[in-house]
Amino acid sequence: MPTRIAIVGVGLIGGSIGLALRSRGLAEEVIGVGRRPASLDKAKERGAVDWTTTNLVSGVETADFVVIATPVDSIVDTVRAVAAAAPRATITDAGSTKAEICRQLREPSPFDPQSEPGEPASAGGYAASIANRFIGSHPIAGDHRTGPEHARAGLFEGRTVVVTPEDRTPPGLVERVKEFWESLGAEVALLSPEEHDRALAATSHLPHLIAAALAGSTPEEWLQLAGTGWGDTTRIAAGDPQLWTQIFTQNRAAVLDALRRFEHRLAAFDEAIGSGDVAALTLELQEAKRIRDALGD
Amino acid sequence: MPTRIAIVGVGLIGGSIGLALRSRGLAEEVIGVGRRPASLDKAKERGAVDWTTTNLVSGVETADFVVIATPVDSIVDTVRAVAAAAPRATITDAGSTKAEICRQLREPSPFDPQSEPGEPASAGGYAASIANRFIGSHPIAGDHRTGPEHARAGLFEGRTVVVTPEDRTPPGLVERVKEFWESLGAEVALLSPEEHDRALAATSHLPHLIAAALAGSTPEEWLQLAGTGWGDTTRIAAGDPQLWTQIFTQNRAAVLDALRRFEHRLAAFDEAIGSGDVAALTLELQEAKRIRDALGD
Repeated sequence: MPTRIAIVGVGLIGGSIGLALRSRGLAEEVIGVGRRPASLDKAKERGAVDWTTTNLVSGVETADFVVIATPVDSIVDTVRAVAAAAPRATITDAGSTKAEICRQLREPSPFDPQSEPGEPASAGGYAASIANRFIGSHPIAGDHRTGPEHARAGLFEGRTVVVTPEDRTPPGLVERVKEFWESLGAEVALLSPEEHDRALAATSHLPHLIAAALAGSTPEEWLQLAGTGWGDTTRIAAGDPQLWTQIFTQNRAAVLDALRRFEHRLAAFDEAIGSGDVAALTLELQEAKRIRDALGD
Repeated sequence: MPTRIAIVGVGLIGGSIGLALRSRGLAEEVIGVGRRPASLDKAKERGAVDWTTTNLVSGVETADFVVIATPVDSIVDTVRAVAAAAPRATITDAGSTKAEICRQLREPSPFDPQSEPGEPASAGGYAASIANRFIGSHPIAGDHRTGPEHARAGLFEGRTVVVTPEDRTPPGLVERVKEFWESLGAEVALLSPEEHDRALAATSHLPHLIAAALAGSTPEEWLQLAGTGWGDTTRIAAGDPQLWTQIFTQNRAAVLDALRRFEHRLAAFDEAIGSGDVAALTLELQEAKRIRDALGD
């Protein structure tokens, strides 16, 4: 196990990683790195980190393991900055999308003095050095509430973390990152970045889209008549609009594919209700119940 | 307050009414009426009723207040049978749809010897006698789990019960039924049957339809990657397919109207994601969050 662990971004996920590491005594030192002093203070106060800094370089340079738990559209730049500042650290992230991040990291950095324009990533240099030390992760755990104030040590217990090796990822790196998440109580599933994004489009991104469209289409004068059904079905629509804009943008193609599947199913319900086809309607509801029951409560 | 209360249908809702009445000491006698002895036994065992019978007439003939908590497509027939067997009782129901039930009850019963074909309801006779004693109710409380085993005395506390007076409903009847639900801890909202159905199409029936279409469109091999978001958004899809078939069928027009509003909103998301219009996407997500946040957790 690593001994000095830096967490970049100490919100719900980063804060919970820190709390889990410290409550389980898994690291000599947990360092919180972030932009906003208020969040860093809150994370320190909650006991999620030993010390904090707003300076990325001084936060990660002594670390042997770095987890990047920032919003998805800043992960690529942060991985590059961490790779430069901490030349021996193992690096992973916790972003909800993986394919676009991994694709961009395969390309030479525009700021890397060693890379030549058009140089393929496999030719070595900067991109290859990142490939040897970075592998993507996505803990399927969270909450519609964000920020270190909602972090908790048990957030990952019994939950799945997807780790996304690529063809060029060294097996030892996969193993180190897998052990890291397992040490927090999670189970690890290995998928390619593209498989991850197709699956999560269906199981996470589409539900968010549907919940938001449902909430957004509800006439407000009737909200007082909303029960637990409306409340459950729209709960995730309370999530952060900026974060979700990034997720939908990064995983656009897979989200739209999942949306087409949903619309196809919805059209079958529409047709059955409109035509009064009671048998077809019951069959659709039974099939939905069968799939929902497979998950448990 | 009434002294002898009969509950026809002792599932989740009927059983919870009985538990609430008895735990609050609100009736001299609570009678459970149903078709299936197993459910009646379970309701008795749970303490929801004093005694039970599968014979509707003997169950309701001494009652001064009858609540019909059966599936929606048997409510009309049951109201008619109760009205004949208990000539002085106040009658209400607990069905999730109201307009179609009230419309049918405005018509003379085909089995009523006193009514003439084509006789308008307002001309008196059978339909008018029902109008003097029946008013629809819908407690907005429940669970995707059904049956008396999930009944609980507190189910209605702090929840809204919609009571649906019609033009011809005597004010004293509205008052009696309102007091009944308030005595169980609920708040009562008065809406016409048609207003109720339009509102509930948006706040309850459409969410069920959407949850079912979402569950039904999820490839099963990816279910292991489903998190709390998928779980929340699809939870009500575990509801009873037969009951929901009846609800969608009874409230078809309003459900399809609500579906059109949803599709309109979904198309805006689809367009914003497809065209990469980040600003429009964020605005849609913010509007959805604003409406969802108004409900609370």
